[in-house]
Amino acid sequence: MTPTLSPVWLIEKHRPTLDQALDAIRTRAYWSPHPEHPKAYGEDGTLGAAEGKAAFDALLGNRFELDQPGVDGWTATESSPYGLELGISYPHSDPEALLPAASAAMPAWREAGPEIRAVVCLEILARINARTHEFAHAVMHTSGQAFLMALQAGGPHAQDRGLEAVAYAYAEQARTPEVASWTKPQGKRDPLNLTKRFVAVPRGLSLLVACNTFPTWNSYPALFASLATGNPVLVKPHPRAVLPLALTVRIAREVLGEAGFDPNLVTLVAENEGEGVAKRLATRPEVRIIDYTGGTAFGDWLEANAPQAQVFTEKAGVNTVVIDSTDDYRGMLGNLAFSLSLYSGQMCTTPQNLLIPRGGIETDDGHKSYDEVVTDLATAVDKLLGDDQRANALLGALVNPGVRERLESAPSLGEVALASRPVDHPDFPQATVRTPTVVKLDSAKPEAEGSFLSECFGPVSFAVAVDSTPSALELLGRTVREQGAMTVGGYTTDPEVASALEEVCLTECAQLSLNLTGGVYVNQTAAFSDFHGSGGNPAANAALCDGAFVASRFRTVEVRRPA
Amino acid sequence: MTPTLSPVWLIEKHRPTLDQALDAIRTRAYWSPHPEHPKAYGEDGTLGAAEGKAAFDALLGNRFELDQPGVDGWTATESSPYGLELGISYPHSDPEALLPAASAAMPAWREAGPEIRAVVCLEILARINARTHEFAHAVMHTSGQAFLMALQAGGPHAQDRGLEAVAYAYAEQARTPEVASWTKPQGKRDPLNLTKRFVAVPRGLSLLVACNTFPTWNSYPALFASLATGNPVLVKPHPRAVLPLALTVRIAREVLGEAGFDPNLVTLVAENEGEGVAKRLATRPEVRIIDYTGGTAFGDWLEANAPQAQVFTEKAGVNTVVIDSTDDYRGMLGNLAFSLSLYSGQMCTTPQNLLIPRGGIETDDGHKSYDEVVTDLATAVDKLLGDDQRANALLGALVNPGVRERLESAPSLGEVALASRPVDHPDFPQATVRTPTVVKLDSAKPEAEGSFLSECFGPVSFAVAVDSTPSALELLGRTVREQGAMTVGGYTTDPEVASALEEVCLTECAQLSLNLTGGVYVNQTAAFSDFHGSGGNPAANAALCDGAFVASRFRTVEVRRPA
Repeated sequence: MTPTLSPVWLIEKHRPTLDQALDAIRTRAYWSPHPEHPKAYGEDGTLGAAEGKAAFDALLGNRFELDQPGVDGWTATESSPYGLELGISYPHSDPEALLPAASAAMPAWREAGPEIRAVVCLEILARINARTHEFAHAVMHTSGQAFLMALQAGGPHAQDRGLEAVAYAYAEQARTPEVASWTKPQGKRDPLNLTKRFVAVPRGLSLLVACNTFPTWNSYPALFASLATGNPVLVKPHPRAVLPLALTVRIAREVLGEAGFDPNLVTLVAENEGEGVAKRLATRPEVRIIDYTGGTAFGDWLEANAPQAQVFTEKAGVNTVVIDSTDDYRGMLGNLAFSLSLYSGQMCTTPQNLLIPRGGIETDDGHKSYDEVVTDLATAVDKLLGDDQRANALLGALVNPGVRERLESAPSLGEVALASRPVDHPDFPQATVRTPTVVKLDSAKPEAEGSFLSECFGPVSFAVAVDSTPSALELLGRTVREQGAMTVGGYTTDPEVASALEEVCLTECAQLSLNLTGGVYVNQTAAFSDFHGSGGNPAANAALCDGAFVASRFRTVEVRRPA
Repeated sequence: MTPTLSPVWLIEKHRPTLDQALDAIRTRAYWSPHPEHPKAYGEDGTLGAAEGKAAFDALLGNRFELDQPGVDGWTATESSPYGLELGISYPHSDPEALLPAASAAMPAWREAGPEIRAVVCLEILARINARTHEFAHAVMHTSGQAFLMALQAGGPHAQDRGLEAVAYAYAEQARTPEVASWTKPQGKRDPLNLTKRFVAVPRGLSLLVACNTFPTWNSYPALFASLATGNPVLVKPHPRAVLPLALTVRIAREVLGEAGFDPNLVTLVAENEGEGVAKRLATRPEVRIIDYTGGTAFGDWLEANAPQAQVFTEKAGVNTVVIDSTDDYRGMLGNLAFSLSLYSGQMCTTPQNLLIPRGGIETDDGHKSYDEVVTDLATAVDKLLGDDQRANALLGALVNPGVRERLESAPSLGEVALASRPVDHPDFPQATVRTPTVVKLDSAKPEAEGSFLSECFGPVSFAVAVDSTPSALELLGRTVREQGAMTVGGYTTDPEVASALEEVCLTECAQLSLNLTGGVYVNQTAAFSDFHGSGGNPAANAALCDGAFVASRFRTVEVRRPA
């Protein structure tokens, strides 16, 4: 096959973007090449809103063709949280065919070197970006995210995270030169002279086990980190969120083929419900890298049972906000209300426990008792979600019946400060849309611990009364240490409290957002600047994205000979 | 305690060296700040030959005082391979006292930041370097290395590897700025502004499980990588090679204390024979990093049974040299003879299997049959070691009775092409000094595989007759895949064979030295330029030193707040 994408063209097109990304991960300043406004798309070969919708509609009810090895049937396991009948079936491939096909694709990809791999990855991302509107529908109807969030978080923000991983991967490989001269003086004798060649060699096959709620955002860092470091990737989507990754795999295969590489560098491992293919693949000797987002039990199992592989996990945690004091009470309430509501609290970064001193807090609006803070927060959420259209745009749909059940049983845990209510969706009457609930708990009551010291995934948060701010910090430390946390938030006007809060987060290794009152929320992170998770507490053993996320995905082989 | 070493002084003294090291790991050119000539020491506060010997002698027969917590007795487990009575006993500390003491030392060390940690590490290395002659005796009388090798490999070369690890650790932490401003445009609205602080946070306690043969060289990368990234290190020496690490720990504690830090950042875990303290410590939740050099069985156990820790291992392998052809037959034989003899083949990098086509090879001295190559190699070894003084200077002593037993049973494996002979040591009549043996094996005979396809640690190598060079490459691939390899050597004048050999090494992830005929040997690597091991085959899961060796020893915690 003659490549239609030449290396020269790819480098010319994408090297400037790569260089900007390399710069951004160094400075951590704001940067993104992927517009987040929906109207930014529709020109220059990108799909606009109507075209994206049409492309998505054309997929419905059809087989999703993917020319990959070992296809032995078709599988359809998705159901839209909005009730839309998707009816898309995906090729089911025998892993025994996928594994050798992926291995066979590796040598030429290794030989291409870090720069070519990087620009091929950037071409894949550019084509994904051009179809952001189509992906928006795919993410929406698998994760339950509202359309705009699905477009942004599932589109440009996910693409940013993928590009960030490519930049880290490239930087890590390029820190060793391809060739070096080595001359060691020997006193009066002739010096020793060697020529050394260094080659980045992939670790082996990479298994990506993706999740239901963020099928692209949580997968792209791993997919592109592995691919950019030379590893073929077997993409195992969550059975309820196949489409966004099937589209991704198709585009990746298309670009790889056009660039003259074996498309089997990226394959889809669509499985039948309950097939358990991830567990089977995870212990295969060929599989040397595993990336996983999902529940703690399987994540812990992978960490303990796949010693042949480098295992990167993002599991569950209990996120805490410490509320000590504020000079912008209104801003704090509005910011928290938004954080609790966004995607119905179904983000791994959504706050769960709000720790509030039982004696109340000082604010710019005077002293507020514990009850007042909780009531005012409830009011803020009510106000934010008072209009059904706005509520739908923020909340999205509950991703699965389990979330709904947890929400419905929350009132049994304590006094309900804010009741959840159903919201009708104008376009999708079958969608389960619910506003968040806030339940009051008292840390002094031992029986309450069982509720707030475990993850309650979904739109349930706990307003936990604590003795004092120091008690809050102690409880925060214990929560992160025992349960893990993807995020910690804090509100205080007292520099000493801020320092103490920082100290807890540094000790327990958790990412801290302080005094957010405006348009940045504790549950959001920006690629190139923010780290998502720390990798240092039980919620995750990896962060998106840092050197550790890419460095062990390849090894450097040296060939030395006399000069 | 008032620090006597100020940060400013430490930075002024060591930052230029750190910068040179950072430059060297980028260019991979030759560089070292640690002289390797014995006569380079004795001025500027460094110990000369006589002073180093006197310092070593003063240790003999005494308790090695080390003011560390939990001392509950004394232990003496060493016996010099040269038969010298060491009689040094070391404090035995209760791990239950060491673990909390190490943890307590962590916060202030974290707070110091990457640059201060780096220069404190460099001060430790500088003081170790000043006592290179003392270390030489300590390494000689625990490992059995000959004096000059003990001085160089155990001194400046080990110090180089430690410094290299500090450079990698510093670079990895410093790639994220300490503070960043983030401004995201919001169209017509005010931009979002955040200030972000990034802190490198240590993973936790680091357990270093050291080996008998290279107590400093194989430990310093881990010790300094962990320390430079903020982790306290529990140094668990091999019971037969305690002294070099006890000296190291004492110096490290002294410098840390003088710099105002808690000396318990580095402690010695001297154990009684058979105590098994490494296994007990390895699964402790506080222990988050393990570095290990030693046998495969315990290395595999660590990799599989300490999922709470990042485990870096260097285990056993079977190193191969493929002999296809040469344009410097004499140079090749001399080079190989030296490689087989150095430290009696007790290096993890010593070649074991020499694969030689049974039809012979082409050389600048005409065609040589398999038998001729083997005989000529035997002659080259004999010549190299013909003089007892020179033999002693190269061979050193056998490190333990196990090596001697393997050597003595080698003749049962096949036809002996080169017999081992005992060498008298003029100063240490009890030393077990032996020249290497070469045994002929035929790859076509299935029973031979059991011999050459497993590690035979010590001065035993196999001249394996193979059908052809392609057969040799196939066997090489299989050997690395199944047994692992720290090094691969090759001799060929044919560019296609060279390419094929490179391809095998890239595929199986092994470090290749081609056509070494002069003063560089396959079993030696130079810090800042060569990678020791690849981390990508069963011999080791880590390389000394690369980004992967340091990147996961710390996490980055971010604190963001409105600007």
